[in-house]
Amino acid sequence: MILTVTLNTALDLTYRVRSLRPHTSHRVSEVVERPGGKGVNVARVLAALGHEVTVTGFTGGGTGRAVRDRLAGVPGLTDALLPVAGATRRTVAVVDERSGDTTQLNEPGPQIDPAEWGTFLDRYEELLPGVSVVALCGSLPPGVPVGAYANLVRAARAHGVFVLLDTSGEPLRRGVAARPDLIKPNIDELAELTGSHEPLRATQDARRRGAHAVVASLGAEGLLAVAPEGRWQAVPPAPAHGNPTGAGDSAVAGLLSGLVEKLPWPDRLARAVALSTATVRAATAGEFDRAAYEELLTRVSVTAA
Amino acid sequence: MILTVTLNTALDLTYRVRSLRPHTSHRVSEVVERPGGKGVNVARVLAALGHEVTVTGFTGGGTGRAVRDRLAGVPGLTDALLPVAGATRRTVAVVDERSGDTTQLNEPGPQIDPAEWGTFLDRYEELLPGVSVVALCGSLPPGVPVGAYANLVRAARAHGVFVLLDTSGEPLRRGVAARPDLIKPNIDELAELTGSHEPLRATQDARRRGAHAVVASLGAEGLLAVAPEGRWQAVPPAPAHGNPTGAGDSAVAGLLSGLVEKLPWPDRLARAVALSTATVRAATAGEFDRAAYEELLTRVSVTAA
Repeated sequence: MILTVTLNTALDLTYRVRSLRPHTSHRVSEVVERPGGKGVNVARVLAALGHEVTVTGFTGGGTGRAVRDRLAGVPGLTDALLPVAGATRRTVAVVDERSGDTTQLNEPGPQIDPAEWGTFLDRYEELLPGVSVVALCGSLPPGVPVGAYANLVRAARAHGVFVLLDTSGEPLRRGVAARPDLIKPNIDELAELTGSHEPLRATQDARRRGAHAVVASLGAEGLLAVAPEGRWQAVPPAPAHGNPTGAGDSAVAGLLSGLVEKLPWPDRLARAVALSTATVRAATAGEFDRAAYEELLTRVSVTAA
Repeated sequence: MILTVTLNTALDLTYRVRSLRPHTSHRVSEVVERPGGKGVNVARVLAALGHEVTVTGFTGGGTGRAVRDRLAGVPGLTDALLPVAGATRRTVAVVDERSGDTTQLNEPGPQIDPAEWGTFLDRYEELLPGVSVVALCGSLPPGVPVGAYANLVRAARAHGVFVLLDTSGEPLRRGVAARPDLIKPNIDELAELTGSHEPLRATQDARRRGAHAVVASLGAEGLLAVAPEGRWQAVPPAPAHGNPTGAGDSAVAGLLSGLVEKLPWPDRLARAVALSTATVRAATAGEFDRAAYEELLTRVSVTAA
């Protein structure tokens, strides 16, 4: 079973407007509500691929109830989210109808108190024995210690559970030092971690800092993987146009589904790139277009790097 | 007892950001959640002034639950809102920290089906015998007939209940023809109704169309009242700086509280202008600054027009 951890879940709102003009009033022509936060997105894609997946982390308030109500309808997905006193944040993506450009507004997460964090650690330890893979995803809400992911990486390793870490900044720096099996930074996150903007150099440096394997996402140029087994670059057949929301989370789902199905690295990477590209192309932010995914899967180029 | 009707209630969110820049991502530094919709705002100000007030209209979904939870804590306010299948809309006001300028995003309201509208009409008829004044406020959600306010005005008059109408466009045009006791349009709404941008001419024309009395809001120049008892203009001591959200609703609350307390017209107008100005000056959108209100009350100039 795969476990995804989302400490800062979200209710993701997408608003369609004619054109966003600051300091004026806008009628929103369409509202789409989705459960969000990176680990939740990863879990939904894994469930859509037919995997059994459990989500944990924090939710609270009316927004948290909306997240859980929507997850209850996803086949294959088990909700092990913990209730907290604070309210789950909202994110608002305002999409201009004409250009398709998106303006993002992200609420801060709820304050997590030390007792709530302690309860989470206990619950996480209870879940680990039933798990083969855990994905630790996204930002930390206020009140969670900055070394939280380092703790969660160590606990997973102590149980022999494969652990992927997908975060940024100081939580990533500390988490990497705890030796996760895989990290999936984008170029900016990798540069912040290593000081280098050169993908291969930065990826190798991230491994020296503790990551067993690194899959760096290079945007339109696909993924660069550096692992003990080898180095590959996986590139989509053509640059994708659309909404990049959730594309990185779909890539994580592709990597993990390929891992539990014991696919070789090149096949895992092809799946990750195809899913990621099919997410950019989907009409709704964060969803993936299944027909596009299946068609792309045969056309991703994977070469030794 | 005063009844306010809000067919299109809202959960009003105020987001504080450094500066809104289209097509970029923003961290929201502060989120304020308030129950909203014009009639709800009027009721909250009336309750703050010590009046017993009942709110009715529609709410639904998690957002509707949030609205009702917050109204439950208001002393003197009775919740007679009807549940509907659709979800109460959100409005998002994005305030730039530096300039104080506001960008508004308004979700559409929920679809109201004919059975829900019929249930509302029954409920409204049940409430009227216990009411001395009713305020019909704001836009109509999808599915409510455009002549809705005309019906509600006629029902109130049939029960001998004083009826104020504060809306715009075709619902205002039809509502005015049903002969409400008072309307409170702003200059744009009045121009849309009458074709005239000249305040006194337009106000007199609105009376000929059926409104017993008209209080036109002239922005920084205060209020112009034309009633069978006379004509007055009420002007604040100085132009108010701040957030105009809810200023018109505070003016309505001032007029109605003065009416039920049997104050003469000039005193009602002074109260309306002082409340409205104290709302613009308040730190939180839609709240009023009580100290500013009491100080302004003695300084509003009311003259025969």
